[in-house]
Amino acid sequence: MNFFFNPRGVAVIGATSNPLKGGYCILKNLVTGYKGGIYPVNPRYSEIEGLSCYDSVLNVPDPVDLAIVFVPAPIAVQSVRECAQRGIKGVMIESAGFAETGPAGQALQEELLAIRKENGIRLWGPNCMGLVDAVNRNVFSFVLPSIWEDGLMPGNVSLIVQSGMLSAGFLIDTVSHGTMGISKACSIGNKADVNECDVLEYLVQDPDTQAIGAYLESITDGQRFLNACKASPKPIVILKGGKSRRGAQAAMSHTSSLAGDAAVISGALAQAHVTEAVDFKQMLDLCRTRAMYAHIKNKGKGRTAILTFSGGAGIVSADFMDQMDLALADLSPSTLKQLATVFPEWMPPANPVDLWPAIEKNGPEKTYTTAFKAVCSDPNVDAVLFHVFIGGIISTMDISPLVEITRNHDKPLFVWLLGKREDALQFQLDVQRQGVPVYRELQRAVECMSALFDQG
Amino acid sequence: MNFFFNPRGVAVIGATSNPLKGGYCILKNLVTGYKGGIYPVNPRYSEIEGLSCYDSVLNVPDPVDLAIVFVPAPIAVQSVRECAQRGIKGVMIESAGFAETGPAGQALQEELLAIRKENGIRLWGPNCMGLVDAVNRNVFSFVLPSIWEDGLMPGNVSLIVQSGMLSAGFLIDTVSHGTMGISKACSIGNKADVNECDVLEYLVQDPDTQAIGAYLESITDGQRFLNACKASPKPIVILKGGKSRRGAQAAMSHTSSLAGDAAVISGALAQAHVTEAVDFKQMLDLCRTRAMYAHIKNKGKGRTAILTFSGGAGIVSADFMDQMDLALADLSPSTLKQLATVFPEWMPPANPVDLWPAIEKNGPEKTYTTAFKAVCSDPNVDAVLFHVFIGGIISTMDISPLVEITRNHDKPLFVWLLGKREDALQFQLDVQRQGVPVYRELQRAVECMSALFDQG
Repeated sequence: MNFFFNPRGVAVIGATSNPLKGGYCILKNLVTGYKGGIYPVNPRYSEIEGLSCYDSVLNVPDPVDLAIVFVPAPIAVQSVRECAQRGIKGVMIESAGFAETGPAGQALQEELLAIRKENGIRLWGPNCMGLVDAVNRNVFSFVLPSIWEDGLMPGNVSLIVQSGMLSAGFLIDTVSHGTMGISKACSIGNKADVNECDVLEYLVQDPDTQAIGAYLESITDGQRFLNACKASPKPIVILKGGKSRRGAQAAMSHTSSLAGDAAVISGALAQAHVTEAVDFKQMLDLCRTRAMYAHIKNKGKGRTAILTFSGGAGIVSADFMDQMDLALADLSPSTLKQLATVFPEWMPPANPVDLWPAIEKNGPEKTYTTAFKAVCSDPNVDAVLFHVFIGGIISTMDISPLVEITRNHDKPLFVWLLGKREDALQFQLDVQRQGVPVYRELQRAVECMSALFDQG
Repeated sequence: MNFFFNPRGVAVIGATSNPLKGGYCILKNLVTGYKGGIYPVNPRYSEIEGLSCYDSVLNVPDPVDLAIVFVPAPIAVQSVRECAQRGIKGVMIESAGFAETGPAGQALQEELLAIRKENGIRLWGPNCMGLVDAVNRNVFSFVLPSIWEDGLMPGNVSLIVQSGMLSAGFLIDTVSHGTMGISKACSIGNKADVNECDVLEYLVQDPDTQAIGAYLESITDGQRFLNACKASPKPIVILKGGKSRRGAQAAMSHTSSLAGDAAVISGALAQAHVTEAVDFKQMLDLCRTRAMYAHIKNKGKGRTAILTFSGGAGIVSADFMDQMDLALADLSPSTLKQLATVFPEWMPPANPVDLWPAIEKNGPEKTYTTAFKAVCSDPNVDAVLFHVFIGGIISTMDISPLVEITRNHDKPLFVWLLGKREDALQFQLDVQRQGVPVYRELQRAVECMSALFDQG
């Protein structure tokens, strides 16, 4: 599979100079990021984007491991045949018009498979958006080149997706909102040959990947997939589309997928230590949490100290923890004693720790430092959930000394952030650069903590 | 209760010229927005912010309906006594240090109540942030004056909250992210006298309020409250804090609240046609949805047409609808026929309607217009869920012709939005100005639709 991710030489079958076409975007994305040889193929051009253009893949010079195909389905079959003849190792067929379109397309897809069987050439797709690799800057996809400005922040979570959106617009949303960067987004479409098992097995050993998220409408070869999940030392989060009857019908016409029985699949995934997601952004939030805290060895039972500026938010956090089977830490007497040094006399500290009265008395710096030191050195505490408001007068806050305290005690820190839009974004980026996850919805924060400790 | 919301004359007991103190913020907020007479009271000043300062509320000239008190608890009791003597109708006691702090504070709170009983004066608080009214610009609160720039967008949802955060930082978060504006945020704290019933009954008849959200840690006089909810023609959404054992303990120390049995409360709220929320932002999302579509009379059963640019997002939407008891509309043959005019031949249209292949064939304008007309004129369709991506090349989109189509057919429209941060914000603001709710999480969109049709 490595030739799909790190090919020596890439041919683009269906390259064009028309910037409104996918065949142009593929080429442009290669030129922008890929460091090897790039070979446009289209009999109607002699040159595109300053590169020699070939009339057939058969005439492309060596070395070329990968061809990306973006021509109408019937022509794509012929192109793949030539790739096989040419000795190319892998082809990404990004054109649509195959099994997802009915019997005629299904027949074309079977022709592709016949070539695969005869020759050994590996086929990725068809009906997919290929690969977006933000770490190595390998964008083998017709995604709009604007993704380079908007959606290509490197990160350590990789995705396997059966929906083009998740390797295109979704990345732009995710990156521009400061949620996270990405490693590889692999859009596998109809999975005629290369399926989620192949990609999963590759990503499990990929040094740029710390956690794997997958949006799947069907699971091919369930046993192999579940074994790969179970054996993976890296956390895996899966969002299964088509769990309802109508959703399953739609999956059939979207990627020609048989969705399978939802309850059976959920049970099997749980047994394979997979975290099941319910929504797209939630899937990424679960992934980035697991990726950020993959190194934590002795995670304990999730006994959490809640440090808040709002009594109400502390209470609702405690309610969520109860609901999601996380424990609110019973703070030790010495912790309570340390906290009491910054609290007003009338208020005995308790968990959730409502720091507001202490902040009014001592200011934020002394209060936070004392509180973090106290709860992090408490053997009854496994994790800290910290509520922060940023904006207006407190337009920024240097959280690094507090992060250091949590690090020294090996206690994972989670931040729930409210704030004024621009100030909050800058704070979120700063905190996440320090390896601490930030959430904008309280429920999501606790959900992600729960997914971490569930696996403990 | 009207004198709390529209007082003729306001006295500020504990006014100061120190911008770091709450007594300054209260005065500054009054000067900025309130149109009546403002009377600072503090024996240490003769003038603050260009206003004459009085040594006692007894010497403040007429008319003065409301006093806002922000002095230490023991002194506050004496101030309230003078307000009663002065014939002032209502006092907002925003100082802390009462029942929430233990027996000594409890005794002070009982002294307040004795004054209330003897004199008839109404008391709001103590231990609260008072009132923020963005429509009438009445900010009777020590919230930081920066809220004027950041968090005071007028809207038609009012809040009753037992947590200061929700009438301060939370509003700044909500407004600056373009989620919604607000009408009145009423922070009622310990509820020594004025409680959620009083405020709810007021808001139910308030012309600036179309929906009411409440964060409550306890419910005083349950029967009266439930009757008020049941009788309300305006939708009510409640987030109950302290549902877990530990959350309930924290509620006791936060606002001296007995949280009550969660299951009993949930059951009673459901019977009173109240929508129960689980999280803060979700509560507001539910409120704004209900407020935007309060006018829709014949809502039907929620049979939804999903118009999407992503097959995967359509499938997951269908799964959420199934989970949340919304029906995916069975499109009529004539609708399918109209849709087929923009679809490629190989793709028979179905619901969810994956418009991507049609957009590739016809461009977005023709595709969207055809699709909206088709599904909105279908008698089998009650609502439309529209998925939009904004950013990069499509950095804006005029949705108004589509909104008009839904209006003409009286079909509520819901938008799930992905996009590049700045472009998406502008689009969201534009769409919401047209009275159409926008959501950033797919699950939340369906949750809010479900809450609307549940009540149908």
